This record gives sequence, structure tokens and C-alpha cells, in this order.
Amino acid sequence: MEHTKILLDENEMPKQWYNILADLSVEPPLNPATNEPMNPKDLEPIFAKELIKQEASTKRYIDIPEEIREIYSLWRPSPLYRAHRLEKALGTPAKIYYKNESVSPAGSHKPNTAVAQAYYNMKEGTERITTETGAGQWGSALSLSCNYFGIECKVYMVSSSFYQKPYRKSLINLWGANVVPSPSPDTQFGRKIREMYPDTSGSLGIAISEAVEDAALNDNTKYALGSVLNHTCLHQTVVGLETQKQFAKTEDYPDIIIGCCGGGSNLAGASLPYIRDNIAGKTNTRVIAVEPSACPTLTSGDFKYDFGDMAKMTPLLKMFTLGSEFIPPAIHAGGLRYHGASPIISKLVADGLMEATAYHQVEVFDASVTFARSEGIAPAPESAHAIKCTIDEAMKCKQTGEEKTIFFNLSGHGHFDMGSYDKYFSGDLSNE
Amino acid sequence: MEHTKILLDENEMPKQWYNILADLSVEPPLNPATNEPMNPKDLEPIFAKELIKQEASTKRYIDIPEEIREIYSLWRPSPLYRAHRLEKALGTPAKIYYKNESVSPAGSHKPNTAVAQAYYNMKEGTERITTETGAGQWGSALSLSCNYFGIECKVYMVSSSFYQKPYRKSLINLWGANVVPSPSPDTQFGRKIREMYPDTSGSLGIAISEAVEDAALNDNTKYALGSVLNHTCLHQTVVGLETQKQFAKTEDYPDIIIGCCGGGSNLAGASLPYIRDNIAGKTNTRVIAVEPSACPTLTSGDFKYDFGDMAKMTPLLKMFTLGSEFIPPAIHAGGLRYHGASPIISKLVADGLMEATAYHQVEVFDASVTFARSEGIAPAPESAHAIKCTIDEAMKCKQTGEEKTIFFNLSGHGHFDMGSYDKYFSGDLSNE
Repeated sequence: MEHTKILLDENEMPKQWYNILADLSVEPPLNPATNEPMNPKDLEPIFAKELIKQEASTKRYIDIPEEIREIYSLWRPSPLYRAHRLEKALGTPAKIYYKNESVSPAGSHKPNTAVAQAYYNMKEGTERITTETGAGQWGSALSLSCNYFGIECKVYMVSSSFYQKPYRKSLINLWGANVVPSPSPDTQFGRKIREMYPDTSGSLGIAISEAVEDAALNDNTKYALGSVLNHTCLHQTVVGLETQKQFAKTEDYPDIIIGCCGGGSNLAGASLPYIRDNIAGKTNTRVIAVEPSACPTLTSGDFKYDFGDMAKMTPLLKMFTLGSEFIPPAIHAGGLRYHGASPIISKLVADGLMEATAYHQVEVFDASVTFARSEGIAPAPESAHAIKCTIDEAMKCKQTGEEKTIFFNLSGHGHFDMGSYDKYFSGDLSNE
Repeated sequence: MEHTKILLDENEMPKQWYNILADLSVEPPLNPATNEPMNPKDLEPIFAKELIKQEASTKRYIDIPEEIREIYSLWRPSPLYRAHRLEKALGTPAKIYYKNESVSPAGSHKPNTAVAQAYYNMKEGTERITTETGAGQWGSALSLSCNYFGIECKVYMVSSSFYQKPYRKSLINLWGANVVPSPSPDTQFGRKIREMYPDTSGSLGIAISEAVEDAALNDNTKYALGSVLNHTCLHQTVVGLETQKQFAKTEDYPDIIIGCCGGGSNLAGASLPYIRDNIAGKTNTRVIAVEPSACPTLTSGDFKYDFGDMAKMTPLLKMFTLGSEFIPPAIHAGGLRYHGASPIISKLVADGLMEATAYHQVEVFDASVTFARSEGIAPAPESAHAIKCTIDEAMKCKQTGEEKTIFFNLSGHGHFDMGSYDKYFSGDLSNE
């Protein structure tokens, strides 16, 4: 019997994260008041010092503290799957592999950085952390992680997801955090937006403004971001580093790496260790970012300095952006509804080291159902974007007869997104 | 770093199920018309022949077909966890282990038998399978499994769960099956019950009657039961057999084995391979069945021949029962709302080879939250019964100072039960 899962022992879990800033030059965040690079000191009111340090570090490998690895071990190393049944269903000669990040208690890759961020905050005495969440995957991951380290957590959840995915907030409550729909009446900015746009479904940009304002104005409170920033990409590299060890146990090596891209952290995590080898000229692996057509940051945005949030409270980041006031339609892949993208991902796309493509909502769910009916797992709508692209690439192989190895990151399961599947099956899913 | 998970390679997955009927004498099902043991032929209209054969087999080990093992490999062998964080939270000297059956695509142990039942039906040419489901775990597991083998599937879902757990039915739809709330207008018995009790929240007994009627009256249609019957316990022994291999990799051996008990299959699966050694006089492991006080079959029922369903269409089974017309309150552990119990489990309890205990709903959720906040995983309300008992036994160890090894079966996750947690946190959970 051919193996379905390539497993690693806990001893084989990486002891260091890989920092691509050692191999890739990314422009620094700017202070919007001066247009000069941010002084790290200026970030200390909202971020833990160690995270600020990691954000700008050019050290190639950064140690993963033992206490973080202990919590990682609750679900890591995660399995790498060979999708035998999907290959058969497609009739493709391609070999399809996927890293199953849905096995974490929060059901996605998000705890990889949430645990790290909660840990460093705990070490520095933070008593309370605020954050925003789109689909709720990040908010639940951070509440899980704050719970592990005894930190209070407040989550501003984009209003459209708050009502579309009610059980994500139940999960956040289960782990002891407080969650409110954003825009909320709890912040000045939230109150302002509610007045200006009483019917808004919210956006990540608005929710970030609320969470940052809350952290800035409250004692012993810091802010945590689930994607975009360099340190979130850094922490996620545990995914790709594990995958490299897992592929080493097979006879295959990825020709194509595919990940969905909102802020970009799951794609970064899966691909950066491979891109390092591309940069070094050792390999020539294609890496594809997949985004929703409804929020086509990398495929239609501009590469420029822009704010990370709608209230223009964050530093300016050099990134692909649709404009910090862009409010995307309320698509079901809530985690991909962000106007910007990680500066690292953006730089890679700008430099031609990564491709980007976009799909409409209905074709993405088509692909997701094909996957669920062959592999079993019900994917998150975000991850389904990666699946759609994977199927397309596998079907190209069917036409050409090429036996390419395609690896995609299954960033999360869809157990809290079943309402979206209901809409898909009833034909009520808009094709944004 | 101490290991959190004890893993097995796919090669170590058991190649045979263990059949306790080789070591335990269980009274046969009776034909209600004659009060004589059922003629296997009489079961052929509703069950696949191979399953009828397994139901009465006294062969100690039965081969697991390769095609079933291939599908098992999508999630099996499942990890055995050492609950370091729960132990620490309780301050107990006990060592707590749990088998994580929530890792299957359907989120519970149920696919272990669903895949087998769908497989044997496929081999015998069955085109359609009907079944009942309580909380939806079985219905989703069977729809997943029928999908793998190209069999049409119709699920009668107990009405209370159908409305309490809407996303279980979405999952059933995702895998291509048809699901209706029971009692339904689709069967004679369903229509009769809807007339007699227009406000009923349904019961497993009613839903079974509907599914059996449907299978009996339709061509090329068979019925599948998710628990109770001997062959479901047989297929679930893959859980305990794996666990034995996993404990062999530690320095521990379970002093106590704990499982929640509705029909009894997850408890049987986890414990029967160990009970074999108890019967042989080699070990003296305590085994505890945990049920809800609202449906106290083993702790308050009678051990006698009774019908498995409300319409009295099934053979008579010798089991603990609350009476086939018993309709339990609509507690959130829908999978434990059954008036009877597996004849194997019943016989073990009657013979003193297994203990039984019952808990109220609120204390069970208390335990579940303690678990979720230490280990991370959000448990199914059914599995939370086993957690409550585990915590009680661990706290006894704290009092006595004993370093007992406690192993419980985490039969499923609660991702489709978050509405129950919402009620718990809002104080609206009735303490049945």
C-alpha cells in the first residue's frame, strides 16, 4: 500500500524559523508623519519588543523557544498528504501533495504565529492583546494562544464574517476571549465608521484600526496581527521547513508550490524555504499566489507604500495594495478580504520570484467540492483557492502528459464555513 | 522535550479487527414473531451478507480488506495523545492519555465502521444505503463513506439535532448524501409519528424505524447502523488495537479505560482488545462506560430482550434498555440519546467486566471547557462525558497520590456543536 501521509516525529520538528530577510531585500516600513523609516521605538506601544526585533532582523535562522515548540507539538509536525484519490478523480499524471494545516485546534495554520506572538508578549509582561479577524481563523488562533499563556484577548471580527460564521465566535469564547463585530461601538474609529456607513459589512482594514486604537489607548495592552508583517511570515516558515523534511522522505520534489493569499502568511510559510533555494540558483520551483477576483491585490493592485488599515494609523508598508479604503464584497473567503499583501510576498511578486492569479467564488467552491469528495476533508473557502489553482495545474499536466509534482498548502478546514457551502449548493452564492 | 503524541506509521495499522465474540458469549438476536434466534437469511433484505456473517462470527480475528485500509489511511492510525497540559491544570499525579478519533474527515470514530459497511455493500452490488443519525456524526460518516464507493445515501436525522446542528447536515450534503429531519413525511412510520406527536423532537428509535422501512421497501437499498450491532463494535476495534501498539511505545499501560456510551461502539472499539486480556486473566484494567443522566441505559435500564427501534421492526436484542418507546430529553449529546446499548457492552456490564456511570449535562460541559482550555481541542458533547469521568478519576488520584494511567477515547470534535457551547456560556443549558 502506497503511503497517504508523510509524517515526522516530534523530534524532527524544526528548531529554528527561516528568515528570508537574510536573502531578500524588503523595503522598510515608513513613518507616515516623516516618510522616514520607522524607529522601532515608535512601535513599542503596540508590539512586543522581540517581535519588533524579528520584524527587521536579517539573521537567517531564528531559534524557536522550547515553550513554543511544546505547544506546537499539540498538532505539529503536521502531516504532508499525497492526494492519491484527487489525482485519480482528475485522471492526471501530476503528483499532488498537500500540507494539512487544518489539524491545529483552531483548524488552520494561524496558531503557528499566534502561539509565538502570545509567548513573546507573555515574556514581556503583556496582560491583554487586541486583534482583528476576518473569517475568524486568526481570532480563534490568537484566543487559543492567549489562553495557553494566561493573557486576556479581545477580538474585533469583521461584521460580515461575525454573522456568516457564528460558530467561529463560539470557538473564540470557548478559549476565553472576548469577540465583537467590527465596526464596533467600543472604539472611536468604530463609532465613526458606524455613523458614516451604517450598513457596512466591515473590512479587515477597519477592524485593524479598531484593534490598534484599543492597544494604543489601554495600559499593558498590545496588538497582534495575524498576517502581512515579516514576523508572521517568519513564524509560518515552520510549515515549509517541515515540508522539506517530508519531501526528503519521498522521491519527489515540488515543481509548483501553491497557496491562497490574503495577507500572505500561509503562502509565505509554505514557500519561503523553497524560494531561498530558487534565489540561490539551486532550484527553479514555480510559486503561485492565489487570490479572490473580488479582492485582487497582487493581480490588479499597485506596488507602492500604503497604510495597512483604513484609519491610516499603521506605518506605511511597501506592498501591492488596492488602496487602504478599499472595501471588498462580502465573499465567503473572509480571510482573503484584505486590501494589501505582505511586503515579503509583494516584493517576491514584483521581482518575478512568485506568480499570482485570481479566481471567482463559484469556481473555487466547485474545486472545493471535488476535493472534499475525493480526499474527504472539507476545506476552508480560503484554502479552496489554492485547490482550484492546483486542479487547474494538474489538468494542464493531463493535457501535456507531464508528471509534475504540485504541492499546495491546505491552510485550514471549513467546519466553520458550512453556511457558505449551503449557499453554494442552493445556488445562492454570488459569483464575485 | 517529552512527547505529546504517540504516532504509528501507516504500515503499523492493524491488518485485522478483533472479534470479542470469540471470547465472550453474547445471546443472539431473536425473531420477534417466533422468539427464536434470527435466521441470517431474514436479515438479507436490509443488510449486506458479509455484515450479517460478521455479526454472528466467532472467529477471533477478521481481515481488514486492503481497500478499507487504503481509506483508513486518510486519517489512520490516529494519534494517541499524552494530556500533559490537562494533567498540569488538574495538578494530578495521574497520567492521562487520549486517542484522538476526531482527526477523521467526518470528525469522529464513526467512519471506522461506515467505510467498512459501505465497502461490503459496494462489493455486493448495493446501490443505495439508508440510515439514521442522532447528532449527525454517524450520518456524515456514512455519507463520506458511501461517496468513496459511489453509493447513494439517505440519512434520517433526529429532528432535535437537525435543527440544533445545521452544519452537520451541510457536511452530509457536501459528501453528496440526502438528509431529512426525522420523523419525516418520507416513510409510513414517520408520517404516523408526526400525526401522533406533532411536537416531537424525534429519537434514534424513530429514525431507525424510518431508515429500516425505507431499506425494506426499496430495491437495491440496504440499511446501515452506526453502533449497537456486533459488527460495528468489531470494526471499531481498530481504535483499541492501534492504542495497544502505541502504549507499547511508552512505559505506561492503562489502569482505567473510559469512553462515552450511546450505542457503545466507540467504547467497544477502544476497550475490547484490552478486555480480551482481562478475560484471559492477564490484566485487570477497569473499563468505564459513561452515559448521560438524561438517558441512563446502563445505569438505570433493564437487561432484557427488547426492540432496537420504536416501530418494533428490528430483531429483539438482549441488552440494557429503557424501553423502545423511551424518548429522551433533547440533550446536546445527541449521539448518546438511545434507549438501548450494544449487546456486547450490555453483556460486559451484566458480567461485571465493565462499569457504568452517568453525568448531568452541565457538569459535562464544565469538564469539556477545562479540556479545551488545556489541550486546545474543542470536544464533541458526547466525548465530553468521557472527559468528565476522566477528570473525576484523575482528581481521585490527586487525593490518594496514586499515579494511575487513565486512557480515554476522544471520539469526536465539537466543531458542529458550537451552538451547545453558546448555550452553556449563556447559562441557557438545561441540566438534564
